[in-house]
Amino acid sequence: MDKKTLIKQIKEGLISEEDALKILEDKGYADVGENAKIDFSRRDRRGFPEAIYCASKDDKSLIEIFKAFYERGESVIGTRASRRQYEIVKAVIDDVEYSDLAQIISLDYSKESEKIGEIAIVSAGTSDLPISLEAEITARFLGAKVKAYRDVGVAGVHRLLDKTEEIKKANVIIAIAGMEAALATVLAGLVDKPIIAVPTSVGYGANLGGITALLSMINSCAEGVSVVNIDNGYGAAYQACQINRLIAKGNK
Amino acid sequence: MDKKTLIKQIKEGLISEEDALKILEDKGYADVGENAKIDFSRRDRRGFPEAIYCASKDDKSLIEIFKAFYERGESVIGTRASRRQYEIVKAVIDDVEYSDLAQIISLDYSKESEKIGEIAIVSAGTSDLPISLEAEITARFLGAKVKAYRDVGVAGVHRLLDKTEEIKKANVIIAIAGMEAALATVLAGLVDKPIIAVPTSVGYGANLGGITALLSMINSCAEGVSVVNIDNGYGAAYQACQINRLIAKGNK
Amino acid sequence: MDKKTLIKQIKEGLISEEDALKILEDKGYADVGENAKIDFSRRDRRGFPEAIYCASKDDKSLIEIFKAFYERGESVIGTRASRRQYEIVKAVIDDVEYSDLAQIISLDYSKESEKIGEIAIVSAGTSDLPISLEAEITARFLGAKVKAYRDVGVAGVHRLLDKTEEIKKANVIIAIAGMEAALATVLAGLVDKPIIAVPTSVGYGANLGGITALLSMINSCAEGVSVVNIDNGYGAAYQACQINRLIAKGNK
Amino acid sequence: MDKKTLIKQIKEGLISEEDALKILEDKGYADVGENAKIDFSRRDRRGFPEAIYCASKDDKSLIEIFKAFYERGESVIGTRASRRQYEIVKAVIDDVEYSDLAQIISLDYSKESEKIGEIAIVSAGTSDLPISLEAEITARFLGAKVKAYRDVGVAGVHRLLDKTEEIKKANVIIAIAGMEAALATVLAGLVDKPIIAVPTSVGYGANLGGITALLSMINSCAEGVSVVNIDNGYGAAYQACQINRLIAKGNK
Amino acid sequence: MDKKTLIKQIKEGLISEEDALKILEDKGYADVGENAKIDFSRRDRRGFPEAIYCASKDDKSLIEIFKAFYERGESVIGTRASRRQYEIVKAVIDDVEYSDLAQIISLDYSKESEKIGEIAIVSAGTSDLPISLEAEITARFLGAKVKAYRDVGVAGVHRLLDKTEEIKKANVIIAIAGMEAALATVLAGLVDKPIIAVPTSVGYGANLGGITALLSMINSCAEGVSVVNIDNGYGAAYQACQINRLIAKGNK
Amino acid sequence: MDKKTLIKQIKEGLISEEDALKILEDKGYADVGENAKIDFSRRDRRGFPEAIYCASKDDKSLIEIFKAFYERGESVIGTRASRRQYEIVKAVIDDVEYSDLAQIISLDYSKESEKIGEIAIVSAGTSDLPISLEAEITARFLGAKVKAYRDVGVAGVHRLLDKTEEIKKANVIIAIAGMEAALATVLAGLVDKPIIAVPTSVGYGANLGGITALLSMINSCAEGVSVVNIDNGYGAAYQACQINRLIAKGNK
Amino acid sequence: MDKKTLIKQIKEGLISEEDALKILEDKGYADVGENAKIDFSRRDRRGFPEAIYCASKDDKSLIEIFKAFYERGESVIGTRASRRQYEIVKAVIDDVEYSDLAQIISLDYSKESEKIGEIAIVSAGTSDLPISLEAEITARFLGAKVKAYRDVGVAGVHRLLDKTEEIKKANVIIAIAGMEAALATVLAGLVDKPIIAVPTSVGYGANLGGITALLSMINSCAEGVSVVNIDNGYGAAYQACQINRLIAKGNK
Amino acid sequence: MDKKTLIKQIKEGLISEEDALKILEDKGYADVGENAKIDFSRRDRRGFPEAIYCASKDDKSLIEIFKAFYERGESVIGTRASRRQYEIVKAVIDDVEYSDLAQIISLDYSKESEKIGEIAIVSAGTSDLPISLEAEITARFLGAKVKAYRDVGVAGVHRLLDKTEEIKKANVIIAIAGMEAALATVLAGLVDKPIIAVPTSVGYGANLGGITALLSMINSCAEGVSVVNIDNGYGAAYQACQINRLIAKGNK
Repeated sequence: MDKKTLIKQIKEGLISEEDALKILEDKGYADVGENAKIDFSRRDRRGFPEAIYCASKDDKSLIEIFKAFYERGESVIGTRASRRQYEIVKAVIDDVEYSDLAQIISLDYSKESEKIGEIAIVSAGTSDLPISLEAEITARFLGAKVKAYRDVGVAGVHRLLDKTEEIKKANVIIAIAGMEAALATVLAGLVDKPIIAVPTSVGYGANLGGITALLSMINSCAEGVSVVNIDNGYGAAYQACQINRLIAKGNK
Repeated sequence: MDKKTLIKQIKEGLISEEDALKILEDKGYADVGENAKIDFSRRDRRGFPEAIYCASKDDKSLIEIFKAFYERGESVIGTRASRRQYEIVKAVIDDVEYSDLAQIISLDYSKESEKIGEIAIVSAGTSDLPISLEAEITARFLGAKVKAYRDVGVAGVHRLLDKTEEIKKANVIIAIAGMEAALATVLAGLVDKPIIAVPTSVGYGANLGGITALLSMINSCAEGVSVVNIDNGYGAAYQACQINRLIAKGNK
Repeated sequence: MDKKTLIKQIKEGLISEEDALKILEDKGYADVGENAKIDFSRRDRRGFPEAIYCASKDDKSLIEIFKAFYERGESVIGTRASRRQYEIVKAVIDDVEYSDLAQIISLDYSKESEKIGEIAIVSAGTSDLPISLEAEITARFLGAKVKAYRDVGVAGVHRLLDKTEEIKKANVIIAIAGMEAALATVLAGLVDKPIIAVPTSVGYGANLGGITALLSMINSCAEGVSVVNIDNGYGAAYQACQINRLIAKGNK
Repeated sequence: MDKKTLIKQIKEGLISEEDALKILEDKGYADVGENAKIDFSRRDRRGFPEAIYCASKDDKSLIEIFKAFYERGESVIGTRASRRQYEIVKAVIDDVEYSDLAQIISLDYSKESEKIGEIAIVSAGTSDLPISLEAEITARFLGAKVKAYRDVGVAGVHRLLDKTEEIKKANVIIAIAGMEAALATVLAGLVDKPIIAVPTSVGYGANLGGITALLSMINSCAEGVSVVNIDNGYGAAYQACQINRLIAKGNK
Repeated sequence: MDKKTLIKQIKEGLISEEDALKILEDKGYADVGENAKIDFSRRDRRGFPEAIYCASKDDKSLIEIFKAFYERGESVIGTRASRRQYEIVKAVIDDVEYSDLAQIISLDYSKESEKIGEIAIVSAGTSDLPISLEAEITARFLGAKVKAYRDVGVAGVHRLLDKTEEIKKANVIIAIAGMEAALATVLAGLVDKPIIAVPTSVGYGANLGGITALLSMINSCAEGVSVVNIDNGYGAAYQACQINRLIAKGNK
Repeated sequence: MDKKTLIKQIKEGLISEEDALKILEDKGYADVGENAKIDFSRRDRRGFPEAIYCASKDDKSLIEIFKAFYERGESVIGTRASRRQYEIVKAVIDDVEYSDLAQIISLDYSKESEKIGEIAIVSAGTSDLPISLEAEITARFLGAKVKAYRDVGVAGVHRLLDKTEEIKKANVIIAIAGMEAALATVLAGLVDKPIIAVPTSVGYGANLGGITALLSMINSCAEGVSVVNIDNGYGAAYQACQINRLIAKGNK
Repeated sequence: MDKKTLIKQIKEGLISEEDALKILEDKGYADVGENAKIDFSRRDRRGFPEAIYCASKDDKSLIEIFKAFYERGESVIGTRASRRQYEIVKAVIDDVEYSDLAQIISLDYSKESEKIGEIAIVSAGTSDLPISLEAEITARFLGAKVKAYRDVGVAGVHRLLDKTEEIKKANVIIAIAGMEAALATVLAGLVDKPIIAVPTSVGYGANLGGITALLSMINSCAEGVSVVNIDNGYGAAYQACQINRLIAKGNK
Repeated sequence: MDKKTLIKQIKEGLISEEDALKILEDKGYADVGENAKIDFSRRDRRGFPEAIYCASKDDKSLIEIFKAFYERGESVIGTRASRRQYEIVKAVIDDVEYSDLAQIISLDYSKESEKIGEIAIVSAGTSDLPISLEAEITARFLGAKVKAYRDVGVAGVHRLLDKTEEIKKANVIIAIAGMEAALATVLAGLVDKPIIAVPTSVGYGANLGGITALLSMINSCAEGVSVVNIDNGYGAAYQACQINRLIAKGNK
């Protein structure tokens, strides 16, 4: 209800004072424990279930947050969660699952629902597997079909060329690479779909914990590449799913 | 034509040896002068006309490249072009136009063609105007409708909140900001459309020529943001147009 | 006593030679053990009890320092103290208390004294809780009333807008955030009180251990923000208490 | 008017539909030209007149902005303005004044009004003079009394010790230094007033354009120091004036 | 002559005292003017004529150095020389030549001599032309045959694949690229010859003046790549010529 | 078979459709497990057996990869392998060996084959031993003779001068050093052979984990030095072996 | 006079109240113009005449400072002075002299006085000449004998070895080098005298404006090296002169 | 014996061929085990006993090195040695001693010999104690008298001013500080003796592991400061001892 309508309704008594107040004051989030607020209205506002960043959360807050979702019967995933954190949550909520490689705790009530559109997740080396999995689990959680292409780095560019025709069929492409991260650039030159690039911390020495891969992807000489944080498979999947859903469903 | 079909056709004499060779050897680009190759087949491969990065091109190469497009009657834009470079090209090709603020030379034969979809270009301060214009000119050149929202930085967050409903209607959003670049994050929390963030070099001191804005956007705590290079309005517009076109036309 | 008066008093014999010497030579600090000097006169000079930076202190020095305060019946807090360090001190001085999250050892004889003025401590995410607590415990130790607003990051800006009227009532505001640290800027645009911003090391990858948040806050496009070191909740609280006390008590 | 009251008034017809709409929709800013928005309501919200960051503004926008203030008879200063920019504005608005060293264009209708409180501006070397002046002009523009202490760097610490008693009398202290920027730390150990530190780009080589001074001030081992951007005399003065006004007027 | 032989010869009077002294004291370089020493014996020691780094040389030293070579009839090139420096040298030594793009002053008495072996110089974009030319001129000066492949960057990887068979025939490959510098990695995966990679400063924003390209090349996931300084076409050519000569002539 | 011949053979029925398809579709690599692809054709393409980068490989992938080589009877080494990883592989494939210092797992069926050419591996300090060994084991694995010169850093330059004549006899020189890494520069001035420099992470404080050594080597004032990643003894040995083999076998 | 004596003298009337006050209040510096303070007592305290850092000084302050010295007949040098600044000072004070390369304005009344001790100034390349001269002029101004060794960089280490015996005779050695700055380390291994190392900004690309040379020198593997700022020939000479004077005169 | 004399002696048969060869070939170092060379002649060349950098030494090399000294009855210290390394050496050589805080293994046969001259070691905080001790143990090992001044950081500048007169009496001053490291600058303004500054890694956040302190000291606005690596108490003591010995003994 826009504000003009609201005013009219108030004036005409079509809406009670309490309800009008509630609408104007609706916070759209809930206090969970004493230190956290969960933005439940974001689900409506943004169309996707929530995710929780678990790294450096204290145990008490973590459990409270998962319980809040569990009690509402809402899906949620926790990213960058240690196995220890998983076990603490699992002790309270038996429905949660965990991927050691992807470091994700899932409370997913929509696993059986139909997935739409298609996202291609292309990663350069076997060491990038954890990030590739983080993206894959996230994208499925957010409702997309996923095809993963692993170990197709450009040091053997034919492995990538071989798959290009297939990769191009996806709505969006996630390109994951560490070290010099050339994968994103080469791929962008070959396809006409948007690429979301994820630099990884894979490498050593002057890889600077992934900063080199980030800088490389940001400076790509090929158009059609945008970049998220180092090792942020989750974030890439989130945006890819936004785009995928808009394309798959049509929009205008 | 896939390779299986090709082999069959060769065997059955449905295709001449010369043509078969041409298909297997097709380079998809043309040598222009002695130092440049233009990837004319990219237009077909990627669906967009070409752009030329003019900074640090020598004059001779620059003219040769624009002439190659002009002679084929193809559109092209040159980004990061100085007024001096424009004048040198203009002396040879009268059809080109120039924007001093956006630093773009345009040779655009499609100006009158219909634009589809909509991209919102949101910028934080008046000093970000050149990058906002670079994105705008590029997006129009690539066939999109554009709405620009300028000077809506988060230091006065109500300016942005006021426009949010309107901004959300676009297929894709480009968020442009320098200094601490908080615009991208705040906007991402308010909308459900993908945001391509452009850090700008606007600022001084510890802005590190835009690196601070880049790092800020890359570390956004809000989902749905991916990032391109500092001041890269062109690149953001390119990817936005890829996404916009897929959404506007439908894809699957 | 100013020096002119002192000279007069010496000349007129109103002060003994020993006392005059003591005044001119007063060091204002005490040697504690063989490696530390404690600046007891700073309490008088600056009006606040002392704090000890515990990280990388050797055990022997740490105990000697706490004992020196304990024996004088003076309050002191130790910041960035590990639980192990706490236990070592506790074994000697039973009065000390500890916060695991804030990593503070307290020897506080003024807990029951009246607190004056009000400081608002606003933090972006639940992962910022330890720093928020460090600031809160410090501010109370230094005599201020504190209101804490947690998990009001700008990814859901309405959580912050909701609290703005209340936050504005404080004398000083501490804004705590990691990742892109946009909280400080958005808040500064909404209030008319000074903001002391604390970047945190919360995040990963290109957060560079908090440097990104620091740079973001330093480059804030909104006026009224100054910044302290990464994770320095203590330092922010200290300065906030200086300002709060001046405002609350009046000064001129 | 809070929202509860508003609803009541609408219902009871005490307020017209148009006015209610205006209140709910009040943007608080004005569009100036096509690219700028000026936040005139910020003056009320924050209690200070506006400042414009002139660097990298295009000429047209700059003139439009100054004219908007001039026509309302409101004061404004433009920081980091070149002499050329000043001359362009001066050609249109004769009332503006300029400081070459501070690079500030002033349109100040309050010059004769009484100044309240006191801010001490302490700078380390003669090369820091431009930043010291930027802070001084800003602080006066925002209504404070200013005392400047120049060339009191710690390489000759007695110059600073000599002035300490006088400096301590101010409500707030701005400490300005380049190179190793030790001034802020030494001063903080001597006074009990809040210090806002401004690192400057003065120096060469490993001063990294002021980053070294910034890092040094951020890592000060003395409490009571917070920091603004490199060469940001304006920002330091703004926050100092916020604090000074609260102290001088009293608040609670 | 090894030292054992020398001692024997001295003892047996087969060598004069003066000559023995000269051998033991031979400096292998000549003082040129008061501030420079030229290592003429390096020609013999290393087998290549000399090069002079002209950037930041004062005029007097520059002329003295070129004259020293000219008077001995020895070849020399001056790298990173401005046109102004060339003109100053040209005024004194008419035999010198200059390339504006490569910024090289040549005094080359061996231009007509036979070149041996082959070096492939592969560059990514037309903006890399100056560095490509610096490498080419240097390599010819040092006696190698050169084939240059320009504008074969990986954004259109087919341009590179097309040339791979030909490139592989060289003894050594120089790969020149700016921005994300993926060329070196892709090329290394395709060939079995050593690649010397030259990062260039071509690009903007987060290219960090070429540091990004340097980091990318250093972190190449493909074996067979080593790297020289940003824009150091000369250095790459020097090492390529060392290797090329060893291969072409055979060594063991 | 080149493509022209292939077409002719297809047409003339000299090759079956299946075989023609296989040739055109030959991937040159094998899928190993679900996440890895091994580029077996690279051995033919590049002439060297494979190496596997073990750091951050998950256990399952690691075992699958080694088994794939073992089953084909092909040699392979795994670099940056922990002892734990070695033990996991050893449990499955008894033929593997391990060097704790060099952190290499070897499955080497060519140990007894003749080595050709000679590579000199020169390292600065005893702390550089692990990298020196990584290079040495790799070079032998790839078929070269190796002479190692250890602890000949330039702080006692006579240790290096003493060995220079001997070092110069190698085809290629690998120079390994941490801290200020001056070894590469001094050595390059003394010899006429190509030097591949390996910066190491040996040192502390401002060595920045080896970045200082990397920057130092990249900026060498002596020609004939190219650089690989920090601690990348493997990569240096790989390229050195490429060059050594070309020289030792002759090429043209 | 120590304070105990002073008190006694006051008491006994041996010193007047005014004189006692003067002693206790002696500032040791003079206000020059409105923005500068000159520390004339530093001459006595430190034993050397003053130097003025001219870069970024405004003209008015610069002239006032030189005039203050001129009027007292005291010597002073101005470092990092542009020719323009020199001409402005020269117009007022005819006695000043200038070195274009070293960028020093001198007002030196002690040129004819005897120099004591000896400092060796060793520089790597001809491009380091300006810094070498800055050090040389400073050292002579501060009373030392100087021997300069130029163009003895380690790319031809014999040039340096040749001079080592002579260099070792100095009391202190200043080592000046850019690029990889290996000179300091090699020299430190050869001599037993303290070395003050000056990194220079000579170089390009990854020399990072001299930061690489600075890091290299700071990480020297040879003992006996300490480092000053990039291009700080003045600072190195100052400390060298402190040491030289103490050695030459004897101290204990 | 200089070379001229040597030649004469050879010719005249005053020296045997073997001895002449030994003199010309004297390496001045001994091979220790297979990987280390110890520069025993350095003791004579430089006048100080040796030190061994233990970090990252493998156990076998470490023991061999200490045994080589032990067997010659020569003193040596091992810096940055872990307690574990100490225990391994202790098991073989009972004479060694260890300091846990300073992390130094000592084999010191000169402990009872007379110390000459005086070095002042001034450190800012108790957390700097380990580095202060490393410097102190080293300086005593190298023959100097030491006075240590601890916890005299500039946050309470009176603690430092109190000690200045005493500190000034030393021949050389070592200044040790972390965080903003202002100590070196303030001290340099107060004394006339050379200061060797040691930045420490004490601090957190933007202290960047000591880089901030290093940059601060390098940019000191006070003359007479030179700097060594972060936490390099050993290196500072070494150079201080060089200077101290020259001053104490006299030199010219």
